[in-house]
Amino acid sequence: MTILMAIGGAINPKKPTVLEEFARRAGGDSARVVILPQASAMEDTGKYYVDTFHRLGVADAFALEFRQRGEAGMPGQVDALRQATGIFIAGGNQMRLSVLYGGTRLEAELLSAYRRGCLVGGTSAGAAILSKTMICNGKGGPIPREGSVQFCPGLGFTDKFTFDQHFRQRDRLGRLVYAVATHPGILGVGIDEDTAAIVEDEQLITVCGSGAVTLIDGRDISATDVSEIGNKGPVAVSNLKIHILTHDCVYDGTTRETRIPQKTLLVE
Amino acid sequence: MTILMAIGGAINPKKPTVLEEFARRAGGDSARVVILPQASAMEDTGKYYVDTFHRLGVADAFALEFRQRGEAGMPGQVDALRQATGIFIAGGNQMRLSVLYGGTRLEAELLSAYRRGCLVGGTSAGAAILSKTMICNGKGGPIPREGSVQFCPGLGFTDKFTFDQHFRQRDRLGRLVYAVATHPGILGVGIDEDTAAIVEDEQLITVCGSGAVTLIDGRDISATDVSEIGNKGPVAVSNLKIHILTHDCVYDGTTRETRIPQKTLLVE
Repeated sequence: MTILMAIGGAINPKKPTVLEEFARRAGGDSARVVILPQASAMEDTGKYYVDTFHRLGVADAFALEFRQRGEAGMPGQVDALRQATGIFIAGGNQMRLSVLYGGTRLEAELLSAYRRGCLVGGTSAGAAILSKTMICNGKGGPIPREGSVQFCPGLGFTDKFTFDQHFRQRDRLGRLVYAVATHPGILGVGIDEDTAAIVEDEQLITVCGSGAVTLIDGRDISATDVSEIGNKGPVAVSNLKIHILTHDCVYDGTTRETRIPQKTLLVE
Repeated sequence: MTILMAIGGAINPKKPTVLEEFARRAGGDSARVVILPQASAMEDTGKYYVDTFHRLGVADAFALEFRQRGEAGMPGQVDALRQATGIFIAGGNQMRLSVLYGGTRLEAELLSAYRRGCLVGGTSAGAAILSKTMICNGKGGPIPREGSVQFCPGLGFTDKFTFDQHFRQRDRLGRLVYAVATHPGILGVGIDEDTAAIVEDEQLITVCGSGAVTLIDGRDISATDVSEIGNKGPVAVSNLKIHILTHDCVYDGTTRETRIPQKTLLVE
């Protein structure tokens, strides 16, 4: 089974439910977690996550610290990735990741770890980079507009989803609709802060955390003028299907159906 | 063997060397060529290519004429694609193709035809769409600048190459360097007008036509500031490897070496 965990950024440090879930799924106290801090501009990001995962009971947490393409894929890194049960990609600027890893042995080892079933997760930029064609920049706002989203080639763990983060906090519905309209076969996954979309076998999505995951399914789009609009103009799209899913809700990409856990509706 | 033929646009109608090569590789007088005119805004584009391929000796040339997502992947189209020996994608606006085909049965059939060995070619927009992450817009100019290239998700025949067209005619070196810098594992393929890059098994590239194909190999990039530059600023990149290849030259992606046919150098 392949498994991705895309986190929307701004994880609550006092109640890090999504990181607890990451640690649990990586193997709990026998987990070996490799941390990739390169998206971040801060020097201590790797150390911060090593400490955090140790606090969450992970015995072995290790950050790959380097900032040059020439150092990507050194033997020690390869060994760590081959033994990892979880790989965690920190936030920052997603293009730093594709620039540093793209075409290197490190990239090949990451994809290979993913395919053998190692949990691969990331927050914010670390979530965006998981898509083959990733959102690397854009503008918030409710309306899909030409120019509201910039794509770049990501690391390519999946080409079935486009992940967007800080989703409702930064009002990104418009830009994710735009992204989906350009290629309606790719499911848009908008992830709120402190929330994760956990994707198993590129099909089953489970939500974890305090916010929501907004899924934008464009496969039934009947018409859109997205290819014709320039100059930041507003874009029309008809027949989008949208799901807003919270903690423990599940979406099945095979049937395109959702499962929303029933709360007790009747109070005596 | 898989085979792509990415053509840089503006094929010389009086001497259509690249289309002759397409017809030859599709099977010559026993070729069955399916034409996809949807990128074009002109109504007679399908008919134009049907007539052209007939004139080049192809017995069976057939255009799939439709303009609505709901019509993409109808049974007649599927039959035609399953019998095709060549699929030709006309020029225009590449996003029209991803919008119309993305997530439809037609898209799945196109990829399946490609994987079984059917020649897939396209000119201009039809070349751009072949990449998984395609260039859908941008600005010409010699310097790579932030904002000089816009990507969108393409149809995904290959994730190893990014094709750019009208390459030297529209001065696109800067934008293709920018594109490669964002993910140095993807080879930039800049194709001049009236010229084709023929890609076998995602490895061997043969050039055909009156112009050149410029290959931009970023795997050895030692440093770049591409992830840090905003506001249309100029981007620095070091250690790019570039090949400029003309008719009959070959690039081997496995060895990263080129073969340039020797002309007679000595004249008595």
